[in-house]
Amino acid sequence: LYNQVMFGYVRDVLLKQFPRLPDAPLLLGVSGGADSLALLDILVRLRYPLVAAHFNHLLRPEAGEDALAVKRVAAKMRVPLVLGADDVARHAREFHLSIEEAARELRYRFLFEQAEKHKAAAVLVAHNADDQVETVLMHLLRGAGLDGLTGMSLYALPNPWSETIPLIRPVLGIWRSEINAYCLERSLHPLTDATNADTAFFRNRLRHELIPELDACAPGFRRRLHQTADLLAADRALLDDLTAAAWDTVTAEARGDFVTFNRPDFTQQPLALQRRLIRRAVTCLRPDARDADFALVRRALDFISGPTRTRKIDLGLGLRLSIEGETLLLAAWEADLPAADWPQISEAAVLPVPGEAALENGWVLRAEALPDGQGALRTARGNRDPYRAWIDLGDRQPPLKVRPRRPGERFQPLGLGGHSLKVSDFMINKKIPRRARSGWPLVTAGGEIVWIPGHQPAHPFRLTEQTGQVIALRLVRRAGASEAT
Amino acid sequence: LYNQVMFGYVRDVLLKQFPRLPDAPLLLGVSGGADSLALLDILVRLRYPLVAAHFNHLLRPEAGEDALAVKRVAAKMRVPLVLGADDVARHAREFHLSIEEAARELRYRFLFEQAEKHKAAAVLVAHNADDQVETVLMHLLRGAGLDGLTGMSLYALPNPWSETIPLIRPVLGIWRSEINAYCLERSLHPLTDATNADTAFFRNRLRHELIPELDACAPGFRRRLHQTADLLAADRALLDDLTAAAWDTVTAEARGDFVTFNRPDFTQQPLALQRRLIRRAVTCLRPDARDADFALVRRALDFISGPTRTRKIDLGLGLRLSIEGETLLLAAWEADLPAADWPQISEAAVLPVPGEAALENGWVLRAEALPDGQGALRTARGNRDPYRAWIDLGDRQPPLKVRPRRPGERFQPLGLGGHSLKVSDFMINKKIPRRARSGWPLVTAGGEIVWIPGHQPAHPFRLTEQTGQVIALRLVRRAGASEAT
Repeated sequence: LYNQVMFGYVRDVLLKQFPRLPDAPLLLGVSGGADSLALLDILVRLRYPLVAAHFNHLLRPEAGEDALAVKRVAAKMRVPLVLGADDVARHAREFHLSIEEAARELRYRFLFEQAEKHKAAAVLVAHNADDQVETVLMHLLRGAGLDGLTGMSLYALPNPWSETIPLIRPVLGIWRSEINAYCLERSLHPLTDATNADTAFFRNRLRHELIPELDACAPGFRRRLHQTADLLAADRALLDDLTAAAWDTVTAEARGDFVTFNRPDFTQQPLALQRRLIRRAVTCLRPDARDADFALVRRALDFISGPTRTRKIDLGLGLRLSIEGETLLLAAWEADLPAADWPQISEAAVLPVPGEAALENGWVLRAEALPDGQGALRTARGNRDPYRAWIDLGDRQPPLKVRPRRPGERFQPLGLGGHSLKVSDFMINKKIPRRARSGWPLVTAGGEIVWIPGHQPAHPFRLTEQTGQVIALRLVRRAGASEAT
Repeated sequence: LYNQVMFGYVRDVLLKQFPRLPDAPLLLGVSGGADSLALLDILVRLRYPLVAAHFNHLLRPEAGEDALAVKRVAAKMRVPLVLGADDVARHAREFHLSIEEAARELRYRFLFEQAEKHKAAAVLVAHNADDQVETVLMHLLRGAGLDGLTGMSLYALPNPWSETIPLIRPVLGIWRSEINAYCLERSLHPLTDATNADTAFFRNRLRHELIPELDACAPGFRRRLHQTADLLAADRALLDDLTAAAWDTVTAEARGDFVTFNRPDFTQQPLALQRRLIRRAVTCLRPDARDADFALVRRALDFISGPTRTRKIDLGLGLRLSIEGETLLLAAWEADLPAADWPQISEAAVLPVPGEAALENGWVLRAEALPDGQGALRTARGNRDPYRAWIDLGDRQPPLKVRPRRPGERFQPLGLGGHSLKVSDFMINKKIPRRARSGWPLVTAGGEIVWIPGHQPAHPFRLTEQTGQVIALRLVRRAGASEAT
């Protein structure tokens, strides 16, 4: 029975996308868990041309055995299988990602690389209805707008990995219990889904504690939340279309380091679209800062709609927004600014904790102590703002100092495993403009560089699982400072 | 300090609406709790012309004392006070509302009546930021689209109670803890907010158990959910505007009992607007059915986009949808239908529990037993579908029967406190068409009328707090039945 319900659902989803069996294969991500195993079984029964793809995250000792098990299943079903592997933990460290984010990035990259290679008609992944509910709830708890609340989509083209190959989730409407029942009825033997400990901890807590509790409080809540996501997805699709049209209307110029809007056109847009235009501009300039946060967007709109005495503000994320006549200019700090606008320092100064040190041109470095090292570790991992850093002084002695670089001085940027570079080379790599380099402020402790503001902190001062006390550092510009220049 | 933050927030909200002190008074709902007391205090300090209004729900013995306490406070602050009272419990019974819904209806009706009378510039109520979070979460758990997730609005005009007098919530951004701190600092003595037991139970459980738990799991979640509601409110405002414009484009005719859309125009609308157009049409025809549910809207859209062999479907809520050439017709069953379409019966038949009894023209009455009387009581109170009923047979003996009315037969409709009417008069009142009356099916037990399908069940068979076993009844039309006619 479950057999038939689930089978029918998957068949209908795919029939809608492929009215006839495609010539090109479907590339299916197969972890070996119940979801992907059941989907694989159904696709085989439907006679779709297939390539299975298994990705080893190298996070667990038994991951190699999982790959072998998937290999046996694929061989038995006569489905060609490709195997991939990468060091997720290292990728997470290098790019300041959570383990979950890093796993996701590498896994999808692998799937779409293989899809390209096999000229696949689509990439299929086996997220189920419970996954959808967990995703929506996770976004809700962590802060989301409409986009986050729509969860995952059944069909996505374009998607972050391809403009031409769609990503399809053919069991997004099927509950975990139904999939398990399907596996039982079809005598499939799924691998136990050993999720990792880090961010998955949060998802696990949702799955095993919060969702059952919410469901007890309001029976049927999971089904309704799934429906809510479905309703919101249509709303989002419409707003995305409207945003794209509005972008074409209001954008005068969009380059890698700045975006200009026509101000009267911008202010005529409804608030919902003004917010999305700002977020889209921020994403253009800071592709890694996936979420221009609520506060940043509000600051931007308050500034734009406010009295025009102030001509320029610092938005955070290393971005500034200015009004120049009929034009709104959103620019990255690496855009060609007058030298007078850079954070600069000519003589060494102490940076007290807590406290601040004044720089030139209205900039200030602030430091404060945080007792909760592990909380800071999570914040630091999620941070995309180059003007913020969190450090662990360890055994080293205060005070912190701020000073310009010294000739030949070296620096171990976080993410290179302790490898050191010349500060001058680092600044060239990072495109700090030549005229700003010699006066650029460095935060130091005991002679060592702790942080180059605007970039990552130093490897020896990184937060670890053992970190207790943390110092939070921030480079800010005083309100109105730019007015004076 | 709290004093100043809260004071400044309220001042700014009101300054935005009233750049100068208005000549007309603001009408403020004052329960006497911390929220309304703090707001009253601030409005007095800001020297706004005021009328305070206190509504007694007659639900608690101490409610009279609360009114006196509010009277003393208002006198002390030299603010004119109007008092109102109504029997909320009776209103809930009569209109099949929860106590909370009934209280809300009567309270706002009173506030806006008083506002009209005093020519007030606005009605103010003191919902706080925690109330907002609870409202959004409650909607989410009970099932909501974008509208429900926006929660309450800071400023609403038009609103359900007035086209000309705005409803303002000047402390919607202030947390309960801040309001309590304000009361403490200003030496105000709020009444303890004794909420009622019924639906408030759900809100209380949210407030005291779920929200603290969610906040522990994802610290800061309440603030983020508040921001989410704020973001979604702007999205909703835009979609509401688009829906209004689309309605004008696609609607050919809209009357009390039917709505017609131009079909090609309708199908060209994006999904998000198609859904809203259907919901708006349902609201036109069934103003009491506040939420056209997810399933109903999906049934309607599946039908419209599906193969056109089927020309007509039953949507539930006593509504049918048909395709007639280029026209989509959504009609209430009381609209002028051919007689052959009515549920009719010519001879008595047994209605087994569980089981069904066939009527003419493809209609069927279904019955099933539910063990959870109190669960059914909640469902029945929230029910707006005239084709469904829940009854308690009490000591009376099965079987249920279905038969046409008998000459002179009487009926005690639920909501009239046991008062009985002639069935013939009841049918005239309820506008059952003359030619359908004599064959209209009645559900009976032991000779007494239990339910007249399409209307409320009978008073002696109503569910009560003592109800154990319940029988759920439903009038449905077999799929495809209308095709045969």
